Amino acid sequence: MAATGLKKGGIYRHFSSKEELALEAFDYAWEQAAAGRLAGIREVPDCVDRLKMMIDNFVEKRAGLVPGGCPLLNTAIDSDDGNPALRSRARIAMQRWTNRISAIVSEGIHKRQIDAKVNPRKLSQIIISSLEGALMIGRIQGNDVALQNAREHLDHYLEQNVRAASGKSRRVRAS
Amino acid sequence: MAATGLKKGGIYRHFSSKEELALEAFDYAWEQAAAGRLAGIREVPDCVDRLKMMIDNFVEKRAGLVPGGCPLLNTAIDSDDGNPALRSRARIAMQRWTNRISAIVSEGIHKRQIDAKVNPRKLSQIIISSLEGALMIGRIQGNDVALQNAREHLDHYLEQNVRAASGKSRRVRAS
Repeated sequence: MAATGLKKGGIYRHFSSKEELALEAFDYAWEQAAAGRLAGIREVPDCVDRLKMMIDNFVEKRAGLVPGGCPLLNTAIDSDDGNPALRSRARIAMQRWTNRISAIVSEGIHKRQIDAKVNPRKLSQIIISSLEGALMIGRIQGNDVALQNAREHLDHYLEQNVRAASGKSRRVRAS
Repeated sequence: MAATGLKKGGIYRHFSSKEELALEAFDYAWEQAAAGRLAGIREVPDCVDRLKMMIDNFVEKRAGLVPGGCPLLNTAIDSDDGNPALRSRARIAMQRWTNRISAIVSEGIHKRQIDAKVNPRKLSQIIISSLEGALMIGRIQGNDVALQNAREHLDHYLEQNVRAASGKSRRVRAS
């Protein structure tokens, strides 16, 4: 109160609006980012190809859609001991993103496009970890080499360890 | 302040600027983090096992050694458009960490412990991306599930796609 010269009520009003502003900004940025990542994937019938498209979207569209990068990556750092409401908002967004990817994996298992041994939640986290980590490296290095590299790695992993054996042979026959 | 025993004014008097203080703090935090990650790996003769130990160190020791998490992850966000000297310091630290892992991979290829088709620089980036991304997820989720998951994934990947075929058969004979 001494520092700001505001009365107690003034400080609370100021803090609550600032917090609200941060939440609104996060929601907007996340909506944009999620829309970019999920663009066009509903139209892809094969679930492994759908995962690959989401990865593609992340790598290709991230720069144009969200100028500041991934809102989750930003929030992971900023809200560490700062804004608990923002942290909980980020946690919910992360859960939703994980659920979204897990649902694609589960559908793929159900349709026998994805190996039944794959754990949907674990695979989702592997994909998200690799992409977010590569984004962070790219930010430090000032280029997208790590992101391109992560895509190559994930694509190869999905074909080799995730796609069901029957799907692999269909692909071979088709090519 | 806790580390130096100096009061706030004393800390600022010690460094010529806030930027310099940030650089010194980064160097100190990075030194601690790197020491934790590389602890004991020289004594491991097999290069794949050495990579696995480094991953183990990252997953297990990260909390104790650097209270604020990974200095690179923090800096990736903070110095995005802030302190350019800090950003360049982070870039050098990232390069050194990549070089360190690449050197282990190259040695492993030379000793025929690692498949000659593996690209040392790409593999280094995959390992770093996965770990840093998992650290970031863990920070949002408030637990280390993503880190444990990343370790399991990387260990499996190293055994399946990185270890040389001769090394695999040696391991089977030994067990």
